[in-house]
Amino acid sequence: MSQPSSHPVPPSPRTPVLVMVPGARRGAQAPPLEVVEEGADHLLVTDLGVTRGDGAFETIGVFDGTAVNVGPHLARLARSGRALDLPELDLERLEQAIDLAISAHVPAEEITLRVIVTRGPENGEEPTAWIHARIADDYSAERAGLAVVTLDRGLPTTVMQTSPWLLAGAKTLSYAVNMAVLREAKRQGADEVLFVSSDGWCLEGPTSTLLVHRGDEWITTPADAGVLPGTSVATVGRALEARGETLTEALLRPEEVAASDGAWLLSSSRLAAPIRRLDEAELPVDETTTAWLLELLSGRA
Amino acid sequence: MSQPSSHPVPPSPRTPVLVMVPGARRGAQAPPLEVVEEGADHLLVTDLGVTRGDGAFETIGVFDGTAVNVGPHLARLARSGRALDLPELDLERLEQAIDLAISAHVPAEEITLRVIVTRGPENGEEPTAWIHARIADDYSAERAGLAVVTLDRGLPTTVMQTSPWLLAGAKTLSYAVNMAVLREAKRQGADEVLFVSSDGWCLEGPTSTLLVHRGDEWITTPADAGVLPGTSVATVGRALEARGETLTEALLRPEEVAASDGAWLLSSSRLAAPIRRLDEAELPVDETTTAWLLELLSGRA
Repeated sequence: MSQPSSHPVPPSPRTPVLVMVPGARRGAQAPPLEVVEEGADHLLVTDLGVTRGDGAFETIGVFDGTAVNVGPHLARLARSGRALDLPELDLERLEQAIDLAISAHVPAEEITLRVIVTRGPENGEEPTAWIHARIADDYSAERAGLAVVTLDRGLPTTVMQTSPWLLAGAKTLSYAVNMAVLREAKRQGADEVLFVSSDGWCLEGPTSTLLVHRGDEWITTPADAGVLPGTSVATVGRALEARGETLTEALLRPEEVAASDGAWLLSSSRLAAPIRRLDEAELPVDETTTAWLLELLSGRA
Repeated sequence: MSQPSSHPVPPSPRTPVLVMVPGARRGAQAPPLEVVEEGADHLLVTDLGVTRGDGAFETIGVFDGTAVNVGPHLARLARSGRALDLPELDLERLEQAIDLAISAHVPAEEITLRVIVTRGPENGEEPTAWIHARIADDYSAERAGLAVVTLDRGLPTTVMQTSPWLLAGAKTLSYAVNMAVLREAKRQGADEVLFVSSDGWCLEGPTSTLLVHRGDEWITTPADAGVLPGTSVATVGRALEARGETLTEALLRPEEVAASDGAWLLSSSRLAAPIRRLDEAELPVDETTTAWLLELLSGRA
């Protein structure tokens, strides 16, 4: 459809795969899905995804060709869409597009696949949607241990109850702050960020969920504290239950995380990255549990 | 460069003008500026402007062919860019692109012109930038009076001092919340929103600045309370000074605004919209002052 872009992107021998998804709105009429040229322009400058960060997304890990937690990711995308008052999405069509993107990608151990849906062009009625699949970044250093700083997110843990319009718990395209805090972490000599609420509780990373191991307890942040309900931590919860343990939702102070037996930031592509330092505190890095989490979250366990 | 888009945008007899701005980074080499087809695709799906809402923008009003406050807008864009750690921008080139867009547009009383700069494609080095000019919306109803609801923004007025990484005061593309609050206002039967800080002070609208008239006082929100420093309110401050009055920065409670002699939401395209109702309170609509503000802010005074 489009000609090659003039944008100065370095060429890659391992080109990502792009599937545009017209008809992502449930009930829309649409042509068959097809792979399109990833390096070409496919978006209008008036797309509300770019002019207003107005849309939702999911990042899905694909390991040895198998996408993990597709159902939960698409269910969360639908929830984000409802929080944004987007039209109801055709999840079945999005799943077909995911399958097409994976089958069109060169085989790889780890692929990072994104599902993005925007409100579409200004004055339009149809969301813009696409699936983008590429070789995953090399996360080996981060999976060995992260230096993490706590940064205040400014919002209290009551925000979802008091101010639903702030979209806490929706995975929107308005991630400028999530990126800014990572640059702040680098400035402070760290790798990553653990957001803390204005009332002093640990929340989540900018693109990850907190998991803490303390004695015989496994703990994560309550979803109603204004964090994104993690698909990876849900997998961990089910696996713990299967072996007779439980995952508890509880608010923790940074000093409690620092004094734990192990803490991880979980996400769908990086999977599990142990926190080896939180602000000034050194944490034990539990390599056995990290290995188990990597196996589990990549769908290999 | 590109073929017509397949996006379902209704055709308009008054087509907007688009100027893409390669070389928006200071010192970049770039081809001459040109008007391109507005209805064609010009953005990669991997542009960080859309995948992360990672960029900055300005909206400039153009009245009878003259753009108002171009210098202050570009200066604020540069500040937003620095808050985002974007490369330093070539403001002179952006201004040339603005001039080109205006000269290419059909003559119109009111044009809304946007300047948008994103971090550019993932793994790239160059920002993506463009100028988009179109006939302004019809603001006559809003300029006659707005029903406004106060909505908690969740953040305290100290946020700029305590948490600069939250980008308060930067005009970023991550505006999903700014759009969500407008939908919430409509649900509550209102037209607009006045954000209130978590410590209960009036801040600003999602795309506008608060101006209050009380006795012989003119008051706006202090910029260091975490609001965007308004270009329009700065114009008002200079005009008041020229006639021997002063504009004061002070924090006000919603009940103080409700009990004032007049309050307006100022912005570059809608200009001045009087608040006729704030939550349950009716406010006096001072038509003389509104007329003066419209003249002043359109550059006609």
